[in-house]
Amino acid sequence: MEKLFVIKIGGNVIDDDASLMNFLADFSKVEGRKILIHGGGKIATRIGDKLGIQSNYVQGRRITDGATIDVVTMVYGGMVNKKIVAALQSLGTNALGLTGADGNLIPATKRPVKTIDYGWVGDIDSSAIPADTWKLLLDHSLVPVVAPLTHDGKKNMLNTNADTIASSLAVALSAHYDVRLIYCFEKKGVLSDVYDDNSVITVINREKYAVLLEQNRLFEGIIPKIDNAFDAIGSGVHEVLIGHAADLLENTRESTKGTLIIN
Amino acid sequence: MEKLFVIKIGGNVIDDDASLMNFLADFSKVEGRKILIHGGGKIATRIGDKLGIQSNYVQGRRITDGATIDVVTMVYGGMVNKKIVAALQSLGTNALGLTGADGNLIPATKRPVKTIDYGWVGDIDSSAIPADTWKLLLDHSLVPVVAPLTHDGKKNMLNTNADTIASSLAVALSAHYDVRLIYCFEKKGVLSDVYDDNSVITVINREKYAVLLEQNRLFEGIIPKIDNAFDAIGSGVHEVLIGHAADLLENTRESTKGTLIIN
Repeated sequence: MEKLFVIKIGGNVIDDDASLMNFLADFSKVEGRKILIHGGGKIATRIGDKLGIQSNYVQGRRITDGATIDVVTMVYGGMVNKKIVAALQSLGTNALGLTGADGNLIPATKRPVKTIDYGWVGDIDSSAIPADTWKLLLDHSLVPVVAPLTHDGKKNMLNTNADTIASSLAVALSAHYDVRLIYCFEKKGVLSDVYDDNSVITVINREKYAVLLEQNRLFEGIIPKIDNAFDAIGSGVHEVLIGHAADLLENTRESTKGTLIIN
Repeated sequence: MEKLFVIKIGGNVIDDDASLMNFLADFSKVEGRKILIHGGGKIATRIGDKLGIQSNYVQGRRITDGATIDVVTMVYGGMVNKKIVAALQSLGTNALGLTGADGNLIPATKRPVKTIDYGWVGDIDSSAIPADTWKLLLDHSLVPVVAPLTHDGKKNMLNTNADTIASSLAVALSAHYDVRLIYCFEKKGVLSDVYDDNSVITVINREKYAVLLEQNRLFEGIIPKIDNAFDAIGSGVHEVLIGHAADLLENTRESTKGTLIIN
C-alpha cells in the first residue's frame, strides 16, 4: 500500500507566524501523499471579541453558539485555512483547503445534549467518510488542508476537534493506505519525566503503556492522546507519532525523534 | 461534448437570505456538470466596519489593503462560501467550496500599479488554469463553489472580480465541455427599454448587438457585460446567458427567459 501521512498541527503553532511558516516549509518537503489538519488558535477569540461576540463557557467547556459558529467558520475556514493554503502553494505544494462540509468529506452530527449543550459542535460520523473522494484528491497529488469544521447535512456548520478529525481520517483511509498519523504539539514527544524535555519515550506499545500507567510515570494531559492513538491503531492505522512541530521531517522517517505508538 | 453550466450569482442575492436559499434550491436542480461562482455582498464591509477596518476608495474604486484582504478572505472564503456549501449539501448537491488558491485552480497576479494602486487585487492568468484538476472534480460529480478570491503564488490572497472568474473558467473549460455561462443578476435580461422590466431581448448575436449599439438602445451599465460575453464566445464558450437569479432553471434549458448571447 502507498504511504499516507495524516498530520495535525495545533493552535499554538497557528498563532505564531514564524513557527507556522517554518512548519509549512517542512510540511512541503514531506514526500508522497499527505493531509494537513489544522487547529484554530486564539485568533477566533480575538476577532469574536472585536465583533462583540462573547465566548461562553459552561463547566469550563466552551460553548459554540450561533454567533460563534459564524466566527469560527470565517476565521478557521477562511482566514487561517487560506493563509496556510496560499503559503503551501508558494512552496510548490498543491494544497486544497477544505472543511468537512466541502465534498461532504467529513459527515458529522450535532453533538446531542446530555448534561451540557455544547451548541454547534460536531461528532464525526466516521463510517460515512467517503474514502473514494479522499482518494481522488490524494491520488491526483492534491494536498488537503482541513479546517476544524464539519457539517450536519442540514445546512449547519459544526465546530469540530482537530485531533478527532485527524484520527477519524486516519482510520477511514487506513483500508487504502499505510497510514502514519502524526500529532504535532509543543513537546518533543511523550516524556518519562515531565520536567525533562529530553526524556522522550521513543516507542510505546500496549504492553509498555500498561507498565507506564501502572508506574504513574505519565503526565495526565498526555493520557487521552495516547488512548486516542491506540484507538486509531486498533482501527487499522499503522502508526501514530506524537512529537514537536519543529521535528516534523524527522518524524516522517523510519527512525523518529518523537514517540512512536504501535500495537 | 458534455454540457457544463458556469453560473455566477451576484452580491445582492448573497445579501438576502431568502433569495439566496431560493436560488440554491434551483441551482441544486440544475442537472449535469456545474460550477457556481459567488460574489461577495455587503457583509464584508459590515464586518470590516465592526473590526475598525475602513474601506478605502480612490477615484471611486475600492482599494484592497492588507487588512481588507484578510477580511474578504475570511468573509467570502469562509463565512459566505461555507454557508452556500452547507446549504447545497443539505439539498443533496455535493458542493466543494474553493478559492483560486485551492489546488491552484485560478492562478493570478497582483494587478500592476498604473495610475491607481488597487492593492491586493488579482488579474487572472487564464492560460494557466489547470483544466485537468477542474475536470477531475467535475467528472466525479463534485460541484465547485468558488469565492471571489485568487492568489499570486507568492503567499498572497487576491480580491478578484467574480464576473471575471466566471468568464475565465468558462473559457478555460470550453475545450473540454459545451459551456453555457450564466450571469444571474437583478434584471430578467438585457432590456430594450430600461424602464420596462419585461422588454427582454431574448437573443443577441454580433450583428444584432451592432444594431442595438448604433440605435443607442442599451443601458450603459449592461454594455461591459455584453462585451465580456462576446469575449468569452470569441474564446470558445458556446453560449452566454444574462438573466434574473429567480429564472435560473428556465435559463439552463433550450428555450430561455433571459438574454442568450451567441456568435
